[in-house]
Amino acid sequence: MNDSTERLDPALAAGNRQQLAGYRAQHFLWEVEQGVATVTLNRPDRKNPLTFDSYAELRDLFGRLKYATDVHAVVVTGAGGNFCSGGDVHEIIGPLVKLKAPELLMFTRMTGDLVKAMRACPQPIVAAIDGICAGAGAIVAMASDLRFGTARSKTAFLFNRVGLAGCDMGACAMLPRIVGQGRASELLYTGRALGGEEGERWGFFNRLCAPEAVLADAQAMARDLASGPTFANGITKTMLHQEWAMTIEQAIEAEAQAQAICMLTEDFNRAYEAFVAKRKPAFEGN
Amino acid sequence: MNDSTERLDPALAAGNRQQLAGYRAQHFLWEVEQGVATVTLNRPDRKNPLTFDSYAELRDLFGRLKYATDVHAVVVTGAGGNFCSGGDVHEIIGPLVKLKAPELLMFTRMTGDLVKAMRACPQPIVAAIDGICAGAGAIVAMASDLRFGTARSKTAFLFNRVGLAGCDMGACAMLPRIVGQGRASELLYTGRALGGEEGERWGFFNRLCAPEAVLADAQAMARDLASGPTFANGITKTMLHQEWAMTIEQAIEAEAQAQAICMLTEDFNRAYEAFVAKRKPAFEGN
Amino acid sequence: MNDSTERLDPALAAGNRQQLAGYRAQHFLWEVEQGVATVTLNRPDRKNPLTFDSYAELRDLFGRLKYATDVHAVVVTGAGGNFCSGGDVHEIIGPLVKLKAPELLMFTRMTGDLVKAMRACPQPIVAAIDGICAGAGAIVAMASDLRFGTARSKTAFLFNRVGLAGCDMGACAMLPRIVGQGRASELLYTGRALGGEEGERWGFFNRLCAPEAVLADAQAMARDLASGPTFANGITKTMLHQEWAMTIEQAIEAEAQAQAICMLTEDFNRAYEAFVAKRKPAFEGN
Repeated sequence: MNDSTERLDPALAAGNRQQLAGYRAQHFLWEVEQGVATVTLNRPDRKNPLTFDSYAELRDLFGRLKYATDVHAVVVTGAGGNFCSGGDVHEIIGPLVKLKAPELLMFTRMTGDLVKAMRACPQPIVAAIDGICAGAGAIVAMASDLRFGTARSKTAFLFNRVGLAGCDMGACAMLPRIVGQGRASELLYTGRALGGEEGERWGFFNRLCAPEAVLADAQAMARDLASGPTFANGITKTMLHQEWAMTIEQAIEAEAQAQAICMLTEDFNRAYEAFVAKRKPAFEGN
Repeated sequence: MNDSTERLDPALAAGNRQQLAGYRAQHFLWEVEQGVATVTLNRPDRKNPLTFDSYAELRDLFGRLKYATDVHAVVVTGAGGNFCSGGDVHEIIGPLVKLKAPELLMFTRMTGDLVKAMRACPQPIVAAIDGICAGAGAIVAMASDLRFGTARSKTAFLFNRVGLAGCDMGACAMLPRIVGQGRASELLYTGRALGGEEGERWGFFNRLCAPEAVLADAQAMARDLASGPTFANGITKTMLHQEWAMTIEQAIEAEAQAQAICMLTEDFNRAYEAFVAKRKPAFEGN
Repeated sequence: MNDSTERLDPALAAGNRQQLAGYRAQHFLWEVEQGVATVTLNRPDRKNPLTFDSYAELRDLFGRLKYATDVHAVVVTGAGGNFCSGGDVHEIIGPLVKLKAPELLMFTRMTGDLVKAMRACPQPIVAAIDGICAGAGAIVAMASDLRFGTARSKTAFLFNRVGLAGCDMGACAMLPRIVGQGRASELLYTGRALGGEEGERWGFFNRLCAPEAVLADAQAMARDLASGPTFANGITKTMLHQEWAMTIEQAIEAEAQAQAICMLTEDFNRAYEAFVAKRKPAFEGN
């Protein structure tokens, strides 16, 4: 939409800003159009598993998005009718069973860092989920801000099926906040698949779409968000997780400060002037 | 119902207690009947917007309710078929766009202080919501303990439509706890209206009522609560937000202490004696 | 299923481990079959109330379960078509109204310690709930990990009906996390009964069963869990409440450490080898 660094101090902008529209991804597809980036996990023959390489590249790319000035919303999806089958059994689980404690912690921290990076970048993330959404794939879905699914999608927190605990990449903290403690407990203890309609009913999915439309619908939502007050959207995202462990009094003070910053943006003034002039505001993200 | 200060030490009562049945409101309507106060936002031609004056008066009045001895439950509603349209565009947003940071923070703290006062007073608050419930109006609804709505009601966290973030007056902390993190994210990022039936399905509304009945239904619920053990109700309210950022072990200890206090009240004994005598208890709030 | 202490250092095992299959309960029924313990509250003529004695024995038994090596999941139920009517009016409330503050706190801490013990033992707990589930009985249900109910079950947080606050044994912390803040507030302020279908819709119940099947269904679920990676299940349970008051960053680090421990178990390797060999893994809980 707009390049908000045009107004940055030139030295700050040169040293800090990231231009990611032209990024060439190695381990997934990456496209940017109208300020919306689409990440497509792309090994459809194996339902798009994650590998050490794709984990690391995703973590680094979401880390760079924190400073990107040309991407204002992100869609995450999978190729070929499935979202993601999770950590690849041969390429990830096989090596892991041979590692020692320090190396295992290095791995679990890397996967956790992907979630941290997804939560820390200011762009809202919309997951477009069809087919299989399993293991680490279900975590990536959960680390997104919004989830569009399909009736036939199957979301499974498979960890206990492979001998592990449900506490993977923040799942025991995030899933209860999305679907409630009792439903999260069932999904994490059993690893059973959550269907699309059930997932919508529980608030895991924001919307169910037709399989052929789910990506386009997610991208349309992302474009809408990218055409809004993107600086303010980033603050919404920051505060939505910043306040998890605050008292309500702390949260209210934190929001008083955060919203005061947003009231100093020109977007706030643009919205006011548009309202007075009875036209639609054109936000610029600053 | 009862004036629990009759038993207070006279000096404490004289210096501290508030009698609010006769309060004369300036910027909204205020009525007290049978221990139930009804606040009616009353600028129906503009769907009952909030102004600097009504914010401040509401904040101060809810602050005094903390020490009131003649009000045991509160209903908040709007006149003319709408709840509240939020901060007035001309009377609030117009001035805000011209303010500097310290003044803006003074404003966002004032609005936040209204929520703090609504959460800190011991009276349960029942919101009766018909028609438009937008922006700060949606926050006032959310800061209430119970929400009765109508099928035609439209609740919208409009902040991003005016160029602001969804983190207003505690929204990013409260809304996820009411409807879950995923649904809260959608409402706060998009500003879209939540309909009545959807709101009931999500747990935002406790009940949907006919438009002509919603106020009376909310008042009936408030009378029920006011005829209960009002001291204990106030402790329930305190603990419902006191425990947000506690561990479960801390919460259990906090409740052990709080409930032990309630077990020392005469209302606890009244309930026991009524049970033994097979009659309905008459609680007195002490 | 398996006795995981066979591999423990003999001295540690001898001093620490608990064998509970042969435990003889005094104040309820206790049966262990295939690693699944079933606790049956058993005073059906009075809908299975709790007494000082049964509280204390339950607290101590769940405390010992933390070190048990022959019980891998627990079912809690009530005899005769009801779950539990809560603290007995004659045997608990009658004495309580005569106690002084320090004794009352001793009582509320004892009841809270039952919840702490239920949350601290590594075994997932499945509550099988038919008929009346009231007061402290509703708390015991809530302190379980999963809840199977019946359409005719009635769950009521009755505390305010006996002049007390809803903050009992952690209710104000746990119930909002299960059903959301608004619905929890209604249940705790009013003490009204939550029906089975409504409870399923709200996420209080994981499943509704036929009254004649609810115990068997809960036991089948418990057997499933007991045949899984029980060490990892215990870690899932630990983390599901350990993370309540953490920031998301803290939760992700905590899970990185916890999951790394699980990756060092033989169960993780067993699952991998079973997958490669295309057979079902046989977990041993170590």
